[in-house]
Amino acid sequence: MSEFISSPANRLIKEVVSLKQKKYRDSLGLFIAEGVRLIEECAAAGWSVATCIYTEAAAARDRTRSLIERLERLNCQLAVVPDSLYNKISDTEQPQGIMVIVKKRQATLESMVAAGEKPPLVVVLDGIQDPGNVGTIIRTADAAGCTGIIALKGSADIYAGKTVRASMGSLFHLPVVEGITSLEMITWLQRCRVRLLATSLQQSELYYRTRLTCPVAIVLGNEGQGVSPELLEAADSCVNIPLIGQAESLNVAVAAGIILYEAVRQRSTL
Amino acid sequence: MSEFISSPANRLIKEVVSLKQKKYRDSLGLFIAEGVRLIEECAAAGWSVATCIYTEAAAARDRTRSLIERLERLNCQLAVVPDSLYNKISDTEQPQGIMVIVKKRQATLESMVAAGEKPPLVVVLDGIQDPGNVGTIIRTADAAGCTGIIALKGSADIYAGKTVRASMGSLFHLPVVEGITSLEMITWLQRCRVRLLATSLQQSELYYRTRLTCPVAIVLGNEGQGVSPELLEAADSCVNIPLIGQAESLNVAVAAGIILYEAVRQRSTL
Repeated sequence: MSEFISSPANRLIKEVVSLKQKKYRDSLGLFIAEGVRLIEECAAAGWSVATCIYTEAAAARDRTRSLIERLERLNCQLAVVPDSLYNKISDTEQPQGIMVIVKKRQATLESMVAAGEKPPLVVVLDGIQDPGNVGTIIRTADAAGCTGIIALKGSADIYAGKTVRASMGSLFHLPVVEGITSLEMITWLQRCRVRLLATSLQQSELYYRTRLTCPVAIVLGNEGQGVSPELLEAADSCVNIPLIGQAESLNVAVAAGIILYEAVRQRSTL
Repeated sequence: MSEFISSPANRLIKEVVSLKQKKYRDSLGLFIAEGVRLIEECAAAGWSVATCIYTEAAAARDRTRSLIERLERLNCQLAVVPDSLYNKISDTEQPQGIMVIVKKRQATLESMVAAGEKPPLVVVLDGIQDPGNVGTIIRTADAAGCTGIIALKGSADIYAGKTVRASMGSLFHLPVVEGITSLEMITWLQRCRVRLLATSLQQSELYYRTRLTCPVAIVLGNEGQGVSPELLEAADSCVNIPLIGQAESLNVAVAAGIILYEAVRQRSTL
């Protein structure tokens, strides 16, 4: 059974709007995922969906209808809203008429080094600011078979609407730890004997001359400033991606792809 | 000497606004570059700057002032506008108070295979739609030392404001040919003995098992549909980037980085 909501002053609608801000996502432990494909991935990966808000027009489409039914079987609260209200609270340019409120899931650091076939490959986000970049890095890390992602304090929120969308569902696929400090991470990496690798243009070796087959955590730094000094200091080694032409730098998500896939290449013969 | 313009109805201001549309960029052969760093790159690379529009606040900053003086020496027309008018015609979220109208420069296909130290490495954009992706691919191609870029008919305009900005100036660094058909390109590649390589998930080999040291043009396809059938058919070989995790695909600019840097790695020992 779906509740019908038409007032922007409704408590649930106000909650959705508040979740566009990080402080409310943090305090409520909730975030928004929007669009059919993303919500399918979310449900398939077993994340806890508290509420689904949709329009009648969206529910008239078979794929959306069966997604709503699936969420209903999972005891998700359902709410129908008019198109005009949906479009007002939607965060996307071309609203698909369906969004969900999802409970955040904080992974443990331990889950990233859980015994698998291949050695741990962890991506560390150190002060990355653009939500699109963060989402694209999560997508790329998933594709490269990473064992987890650590978003250090000071990086863009991994649960921001644009990040969740740019991750194309990959946020739901692999363990993500957010909000820890560099020191907490360094201590843990040392205890687990995971090598810390930082990207840096100075005093570093070519990324493809570096051995990436051992347990390793790769730090990607801020778009302007790069990796923070304390992590450069703590790193077991620093690597650079050579710039052959005249470009001053690479986009950080592209840089992530280049290094992670060099790890894939090297590990393919393990 | 700078002309002072305060009316939105001024001919020059109307031209700037019209250049946000591809049809006017095409018919006038002009486009807009905005922001200090981008315009510095543009001037340094010798592109022809017709007009510079700036605010007094921007000109009060040393770096911007010397850029304007440099453009004046190059016989560029100068116009000062009030902040309010600048912000109205600006295409950026945080306007820096300086933009230029630049003449397009169509490179020749021949310039991409000009005798250099290393074999030609060309990137082909086949129906890529997102201006940010196109700009990031141009930036990545520049970084990887590509000898040129071909934007086939049907790709997003390389001279759109967002593309120019996302290229971070790399648009000015390497030869770009736009608006030719697949057939024209295929004929030319065959004549120059440049291998055509398409990215494809089906019936393809791993990108890092493919030899990228010979003269090669790498086709990157549309975000949703991938490379078009006629190019898959014409390709000398097809390559894929393996998806190890659960992600269904990679962002196309990230994919470009992964393959182009595999070429860099293989060519580093030439």
